[in-house]
Amino acid sequence: MVKYVYFFGSGKAEGSSLMRNLLGGKGCELAEMTNLGISVPPGFTITTQAWARYTKAAQKWPESLWEQTTEAVRRLEAGAGMKLGDPKRPLLVSVRSGARVSMPGMMETVLNLGLNDRTVRGLAEWTKNERFAWDCYRRFITMFSNVVLGIRREAFEEHLQAAKTRLGVKTDPEVPAEELERLTQVYQGVVAEHAGVPFPQEPAEQLRLAISAVFGSWFAKKAVEYRRIHGIPGDWGTAVTIMAMVFGNLGETSGTGVGFTRDPRTGERRFYAEFLANAQGEDVVAGIRTPEHIDDLKRRMPKVYEELTTIADRLERHYKDMQDIEFTIQEGKLYLLQTRAGKRSAAAAVRVAVDLYRESVIDRDTALMRVRPQDLHQILHPKFDDEDRERAIAGGRLLARGLPAAPGAAVGEVVFDADRAVEWARAGQQVILVRAETSPEDVAGMYAAEGIVTSRGGRTSHAAVVAVGMGKCCVVGAGDVVVDEERRVFEAGGRTVREGDVISVDGSTGDVLLDAVKTLQPELGGEFREFLGWADERRTLGVRANADTPEDARKAREFGAEGIGLVRTEHMFFSHERIPIVREMIMAGDSAARRAAVAKLLPFQREDFLGIFRAMDGLPVTIRLLDPPLHEFLPKYTDLLEEYTRLDARHMERERLEVVMAKVRSLQEANPMLGHRGCRLGITFPEIYGMQVRAIMEAACAATGQGVAVSPEIMIPLTGTVGEMRLMHETTKAVADGVLAELGVPVPYLIGTMIEVPRAALIADQLAQTAEFFSFGTNDLTQLTFGYSRDDVAKFLPFYLDKGLLPSDPFSVLDQEGVGELVRIGIERGRHARPDLKVGICGEHGGEPASVEFCHRVHMTYVSCSPFMIPIARLSAAQARIRARQASEGAASA
Amino acid sequence: MVKYVYFFGSGKAEGSSLMRNLLGGKGCELAEMTNLGISVPPGFTITTQAWARYTKAAQKWPESLWEQTTEAVRRLEAGAGMKLGDPKRPLLVSVRSGARVSMPGMMETVLNLGLNDRTVRGLAEWTKNERFAWDCYRRFITMFSNVVLGIRREAFEEHLQAAKTRLGVKTDPEVPAEELERLTQVYQGVVAEHAGVPFPQEPAEQLRLAISAVFGSWFAKKAVEYRRIHGIPGDWGTAVTIMAMVFGNLGETSGTGVGFTRDPRTGERRFYAEFLANAQGEDVVAGIRTPEHIDDLKRRMPKVYEELTTIADRLERHYKDMQDIEFTIQEGKLYLLQTRAGKRSAAAAVRVAVDLYRESVIDRDTALMRVRPQDLHQILHPKFDDEDRERAIAGGRLLARGLPAAPGAAVGEVVFDADRAVEWARAGQQVILVRAETSPEDVAGMYAAEGIVTSRGGRTSHAAVVAVGMGKCCVVGAGDVVVDEERRVFEAGGRTVREGDVISVDGSTGDVLLDAVKTLQPELGGEFREFLGWADERRTLGVRANADTPEDARKAREFGAEGIGLVRTEHMFFSHERIPIVREMIMAGDSAARRAAVAKLLPFQREDFLGIFRAMDGLPVTIRLLDPPLHEFLPKYTDLLEEYTRLDARHMERERLEVVMAKVRSLQEANPMLGHRGCRLGITFPEIYGMQVRAIMEAACAATGQGVAVSPEIMIPLTGTVGEMRLMHETTKAVADGVLAELGVPVPYLIGTMIEVPRAALIADQLAQTAEFFSFGTNDLTQLTFGYSRDDVAKFLPFYLDKGLLPSDPFSVLDQEGVGELVRIGIERGRHARPDLKVGICGEHGGEPASVEFCHRVHMTYVSCSPFMIPIARLSAAQARIRARQASEGAASA
Repeated sequence: MVKYVYFFGSGKAEGSSLMRNLLGGKGCELAEMTNLGISVPPGFTITTQAWARYTKAAQKWPESLWEQTTEAVRRLEAGAGMKLGDPKRPLLVSVRSGARVSMPGMMETVLNLGLNDRTVRGLAEWTKNERFAWDCYRRFITMFSNVVLGIRREAFEEHLQAAKTRLGVKTDPEVPAEELERLTQVYQGVVAEHAGVPFPQEPAEQLRLAISAVFGSWFAKKAVEYRRIHGIPGDWGTAVTIMAMVFGNLGETSGTGVGFTRDPRTGERRFYAEFLANAQGEDVVAGIRTPEHIDDLKRRMPKVYEELTTIADRLERHYKDMQDIEFTIQEGKLYLLQTRAGKRSAAAAVRVAVDLYRESVIDRDTALMRVRPQDLHQILHPKFDDEDRERAIAGGRLLARGLPAAPGAAVGEVVFDADRAVEWARAGQQVILVRAETSPEDVAGMYAAEGIVTSRGGRTSHAAVVAVGMGKCCVVGAGDVVVDEERRVFEAGGRTVREGDVISVDGSTGDVLLDAVKTLQPELGGEFREFLGWADERRTLGVRANADTPEDARKAREFGAEGIGLVRTEHMFFSHERIPIVREMIMAGDSAARRAAVAKLLPFQREDFLGIFRAMDGLPVTIRLLDPPLHEFLPKYTDLLEEYTRLDARHMERERLEVVMAKVRSLQEANPMLGHRGCRLGITFPEIYGMQVRAIMEAACAATGQGVAVSPEIMIPLTGTVGEMRLMHETTKAVADGVLAELGVPVPYLIGTMIEVPRAALIADQLAQTAEFFSFGTNDLTQLTFGYSRDDVAKFLPFYLDKGLLPSDPFSVLDQEGVGELVRIGIERGRHARPDLKVGICGEHGGEPASVEFCHRVHMTYVSCSPFMIPIARLSAAQARIRARQASEGAASA
Repeated sequence: MVKYVYFFGSGKAEGSSLMRNLLGGKGCELAEMTNLGISVPPGFTITTQAWARYTKAAQKWPESLWEQTTEAVRRLEAGAGMKLGDPKRPLLVSVRSGARVSMPGMMETVLNLGLNDRTVRGLAEWTKNERFAWDCYRRFITMFSNVVLGIRREAFEEHLQAAKTRLGVKTDPEVPAEELERLTQVYQGVVAEHAGVPFPQEPAEQLRLAISAVFGSWFAKKAVEYRRIHGIPGDWGTAVTIMAMVFGNLGETSGTGVGFTRDPRTGERRFYAEFLANAQGEDVVAGIRTPEHIDDLKRRMPKVYEELTTIADRLERHYKDMQDIEFTIQEGKLYLLQTRAGKRSAAAAVRVAVDLYRESVIDRDTALMRVRPQDLHQILHPKFDDEDRERAIAGGRLLARGLPAAPGAAVGEVVFDADRAVEWARAGQQVILVRAETSPEDVAGMYAAEGIVTSRGGRTSHAAVVAVGMGKCCVVGAGDVVVDEERRVFEAGGRTVREGDVISVDGSTGDVLLDAVKTLQPELGGEFREFLGWADERRTLGVRANADTPEDARKAREFGAEGIGLVRTEHMFFSHERIPIVREMIMAGDSAARRAAVAKLLPFQREDFLGIFRAMDGLPVTIRLLDPPLHEFLPKYTDLLEEYTRLDARHMERERLEVVMAKVRSLQEANPMLGHRGCRLGITFPEIYGMQVRAIMEAACAATGQGVAVSPEIMIPLTGTVGEMRLMHETTKAVADGVLAELGVPVPYLIGTMIEVPRAALIADQLAQTAEFFSFGTNDLTQLTFGYSRDDVAKFLPFYLDKGLLPSDPFSVLDQEGVGELVRIGIERGRHARPDLKVGICGEHGGEPASVEFCHRVHMTYVSCSPFMIPIARLSAAQARIRARQASEGAASA
């Protein structure tokens, strides 16, 4: 006979913490606490295996399950000295769901099961509280009918409401016992009417039906949805725990409460709890009464308080983690109803982990595994004060909700173009840049702004990618925001917001709110630095930053970057003094004119590089040569066309414009992503790369002269053929060596390539014969491997994610089986040709924990990510190593 | 001592045909003929190994090479009874280059070496021809000085010119012996002046210098360029053959000629030769005298003629292939100077191969290997009469030269838009569609036209791809053609061509010519069909066609297609009666309106499919569901904008247009290639695919009812995730089975997918769990693997090909190491999950010989290509199998 039922009670349980998959989280911890000798109401748990059989057999109870259940009920009755259905001393039970991971509120619970027209009177007598008993019964009928029979709560509530109206009272507690007794009759009529059967009076039948209903609640729509979002397999199923009811509302020596063994907001070591005397847990949840400070309990029942804190301490030491407990005191006796690892803020998570290590409760690796890397966002960015945010929403100030593209919270005055953003920011104002969408020309404005809002685009749109890189709070795809650039207003949520009006942008939720919301600045405590120091000791994967300016480089270093993995040189081309020269270069009719324009850019680039080299003294800096197509530096054709049509009479202007328009037209591409860019540009217009390499090496020499240790790594973008690699290596080396010889300074440097097109990964062995390092550009590699344009993917990707056709956005989380497979192949083949090949990643994935773990697994040398992601990458890298070691130890010991 | 010199003469040679790599083509065949007892002037060949040593040692003669050379000269002198430098009986030799493959005219030759101020008199005496001797000497000085000393020919020619002027004569032969004698003095002065050294009188020195110069000519600019174009490795080097001179100009019993053992134009078996009595080979080449018919030789010297034809026959049998021979007759004695496989037209190649098999000279496999598949283009398409074409060019009628995009020759009246093309063609006129570039809207016009010319775009532009598919002659990227659509003219080559003017388009050369050029129609002879029948017997790889209409399907079947590998359903959407419905479908505001429009398309699609099924009775038909993004079916935004600005006052019209413009704008994509298309569209707008599947299955049922054997293969485009595949399989199957149940007809059908995105190849094992067949869409796969947009690649691909960064256009020839690697991975993984997986290719590569060979090697089930490519694919597939077997036999015997 399969054992489906595990009993716990009287200090002994058949289950334990180790049986989480079989008994669910709730069931196994109740068993564990029972075995620890902690006072827990007795009960038993029906296993997930029973659920599986039941489900597989199309809702037929598996053989012997009911027998085992009734046997367990008999044990429960014997222990409690009460009987299910006994009119004098009726045993009441709760029937609760419990999966192996917590799915709060997703599945069903039935309380006070065992009440019927007879036992309700026994309860009244025993508790000496008629009203309480009838209220329990009324609630039980409602809950049971809803969960088991599928009758809407409103079908009952309307009768309660009518009674209150008739009696002229406002709140439920004002409804007297007699009225509640009458309502239980009315309610049973409702059941008979809706369900076509009478309300089951027999407790055994109630129990059987409730257990079936809880089994079935695994497939409730909201539960299925929750599992889909959280990636919980549908075949795990739920256990069902049946437990004797205890009551906290039987007078002044009763009560109920919840508590954390440490402060969940800060991680401070103190018992952080709330208590409500003479109350049930429901009352706390319903918000009918305000919980009291835990000191009240200490004052009222010092012994119970002492017992409670002792148990809390014991549980924390037992589980080696901060616990979140629920307890009830029934007539002076303490019962624990639940214990689990407590949810906590990121700051608290770090502090608790560090403290538990210091208290010798856990080792460092365990401490490192206790913090979810992505939660560090909370610590690294400002955020809104929750209460003030709620107030703003309640006050109707929510203008729109877009996609949270880059975390943080920002408040500022609305501006509609980059120039004004820069201008106003210079004047000391805080601004929010609001645009339909952004383009590379907006970068300076984005930099100047506190936050960015766009009405179009997805999480991988230009705005989103650039904002993440800058660590700017950003909301994209806020479709309700209709921007009218000409009138300099936007409409949203039925309001018109003008330039200069103040808005608040929440990059973590996607909310755009009118007026200022109170902002909380992040604090990077000493524990945080110590914690990340441990991560650094543990990890083998390097962590570098993507940074385009000396300021970014300094910030990156502060966050712990061990080098720069990607300098995007094109970002340097967009500033006000340079873009005219860049356009001059593009408009050049011949090589000589182009060379002349390029020469003017050289000093700028040299200064840029010098600044970065100085900021990164002693660390490697990978510089990517110009990547985007030239037309990105020119105005848009439609804009020119509009300007042109407005220029009625002025012929001179029209002629000038015609030349630009012709150039723009000639550079237009059907698919710019797949066009004339990267090294294709570098090869066809060698002047540009020549200048850039010269600028890099001149800057390197200058830095060396200033005593700065420099090691530039020159990176060729978009290489796809061995011919390109050889040619670029040769021409780059010629210029670089030329400069070094000219200036007489020895600077060690490397020439490598990005791996961005699938072909590069496939022929990596050939490329590695010349390339001295690889950096996987997983943004482009993802676009090409999937055939998804990241600018256009919003048309179907949300639908795909919604329908489960993709597990996650591949631009956020590296697609390991497709893109990752190419990365794996690329590394394997590359190292086959050059065993010591340095390999990194510089796409947006370099700061995403699951992707970082993948990078560790495929033996990359380093990941490179936005400065603000660095701490996340450091922790992720450490966890990847720990997890890999645990897995190999697990495999070895198995 | 390394043997560098191989002697031949007196019926015995040290070399043979087998030593081609060592002795070069010319050297080894002269040795072979000598060994066959055929009369060849004696001589010797210096090996390519000597060249290699010489080159490696920086032009230093390797040890013993000169000794071996002088030893060979002594043997030559002994055999000939003449001596180099002997004033009485001077031996004269030629010094010729000869690589292992023929590089006609690329390297140097020196004739008449051995002449000097003394031997010239001996020659005069011996030949009894003073003028001849001095003319030889004059020419030798010129040639030697040019080849060996690098002195320009003009430096000598000007003196000859001056002499002729002075003497008042027009042609060289009129210059008398005394004047030539004087000129040899003048010429020697020129040498002394230009080279700073006297002209070398010593024959041994002449020889040594000439050999060195021929070695060096391997690196002449034109030779390097030629090797780059033809993919000949630079380290092969050249051999040098030194051979006794024979003279065909010593009177009426002397002469010279060239001949083919069969007619190189038709392949007919007859000795096809030209002869010139009392002349040297040079005279034929210089065009000074018109060669006579070979019958003249038969008449003049019947015995020599007999000997010649006997030798020709013997050589053909010996080499088992049609030969191209050169011969000289010196005073009644016949000498063979060269033999090699003769160049021939494609038609001749087929006929010769078939005849040689019938004559039991070669086996069938050898016959099949004798025809280059790509040469079949010549047979399959009309072509211009060469002479008339030359006349047109000479007459200044060449308007422009573009890229030859689709072979053939077409003559017709110029039209500038598709509508007019259709209209005029209906009226029975032959038209040529001339456009800046074409779009899918032009397809009907392209179909109606005889040929297509575009001024923009490369070989993989829309125009090129569609034209190849239609078998229409097409020239693209003719940049000199400036189209003015409004004025309905184009300017090119300084001329203005109006609509209605006649032009001729050569899709094999890229020429666009004014007026009509005489056209020759292809003839598919019986040998051709027999030959392809042999190919079918030999090949294991299937051959299908890409066809979108019943006419195409019929044509494909005629050419030997064994099924349809790709029906592009979108091509059916562009016709006049359908495009308004398609637009209605796109403009639909909701699903109901969309369904209504889609329903109107159903009967059209059903008819299309029914027609194709009937044409392919008994053969499988693979139908791809809608692939392109919806915006391809709407007008271009810029066109709408222009129309809009012209619509000044008419508000109604503007309002209508505004709606369309808004839709077009909303559908615009940054990178349409990577956008909302293929199954992404099918998934988000399920109505469209639902209609298409219904139309396919209804047509299949109808065809079955008509007694037609149908097996449709429904193909999902652009699948990249297993979720897409599963969903599409499920929904497709539901509709298909629904129709079959509804109509009560059993039709076997398959559901499979295209493999177009790299990710699909990487997860092929997962896809094959549901997909019943794969078809590699190598056009898109190439775009994504390289990251090349085929619409934009013209900006850099020509440059890449020119610089050798890519060996060939990857859109024409499948890139085996990159794209092919993904194909290989995809097949391997797909068959791992489903061992009997049917695998095909349906990109443009399916008709390209090297790509077909690759497809055979990776065990594809079939290739699919344009109907006109089918014969090429059939032959390529047979050759692939033969080559593979030869390789494995070679490996086994090694």
